[in-house]
Amino acid sequence: MKRRQYALQEGEVCKYLTFVSTGLLKSFKIDEKGNERISLFACEGWWISDFNSFIHQEPAVLTIDAIEASELLQISRANYERLLRDVPIMERYFRILYQNSLVTKDKRLISSNSDTAEIKYQRMLETMPDIVQRVPQHLIASYLGLAPETISRIKNKP
Amino acid sequence: MKRRQYALQEGEVCKYLTFVSTGLLKSFKIDEKGNERISLFACEGWWISDFNSFIHQEPAVLTIDAIEASELLQISRANYERLLRDVPIMERYFRILYQNSLVTKDKRLISSNSDTAEIKYQRMLETMPDIVQRVPQHLIASYLGLAPETISRIKNKP
Repeated sequence: MKRRQYALQEGEVCKYLTFVSTGLLKSFKIDEKGNERISLFACEGWWISDFNSFIHQEPAVLTIDAIEASELLQISRANYERLLRDVPIMERYFRILYQNSLVTKDKRLISSNSDTAEIKYQRMLETMPDIVQRVPQHLIASYLGLAPETISRIKNKP
Repeated sequence: MKRRQYALQEGEVCKYLTFVSTGLLKSFKIDEKGNERISLFACEGWWISDFNSFIHQEPAVLTIDAIEASELLQISRANYERLLRDVPIMERYFRILYQNSLVTKDKRLISSNSDTAEIKYQRMLETMPDIVQRVPQHLIASYLGLAPETISRIKNKP
């Protein structure tokens, strides 16, 4: 995929679980004001999808596009089931992937409800230092649910 | 467990994944104002835990208590790993459990950010009719992030 190309558009069915071989993608929703609300950054070794849409073959609420030129591996719903049936170790792989994803989602939800802007940004520096390096500041702000000015203010603090 | 007994208190390490054989439990956080914010109801056949605390053996942010007298089955972290190692079908079981949990969490998060109070309550009636029957109204309100008066207003609408 080239930079800015779409892997999924809102309203389509998410046909694939996407594994990022190289590059960087993001998934997001467009809110009422037309702003992107980023739900995930995925770089090398990460998976990205509209998971509900993929599992239930319903219209996606998320859009996915490439922040950098990217090389992707994609698996369809039918092949995902076949893989899990035929290669038992993949059950373990996805069980652990989903287990980690549940933990991360819980932590992020708790943080978004209770942490200050400073702490949110600090956490992101600690947990995703590579993403913070590679991504423009307004996208970091969108991911954290903060105004871009807030990030500038935090970074410029002595 | 008797009604109102605790299965987990905030700050403890969550030692067990808990499966509800009979009865009904809830997990919740206490917010700054001292109100319970309910994150999950679990009745017969459901699992409940502070999942991050269980997986990483860190202090729990959730409290879990019994809404009804309940019979529980509990598995420790070490036995959970042993079960997954020794009984391969359990990898599949937990992979599907976590897969469903991720989908449900995403849907609930989207709903909490964008749906009206009416739609939230309607959704809950459709997806968890048994819970709505068994649980006092102020707990439904806490789960949906609504004021108890709002639920009364919705129910009394002609």
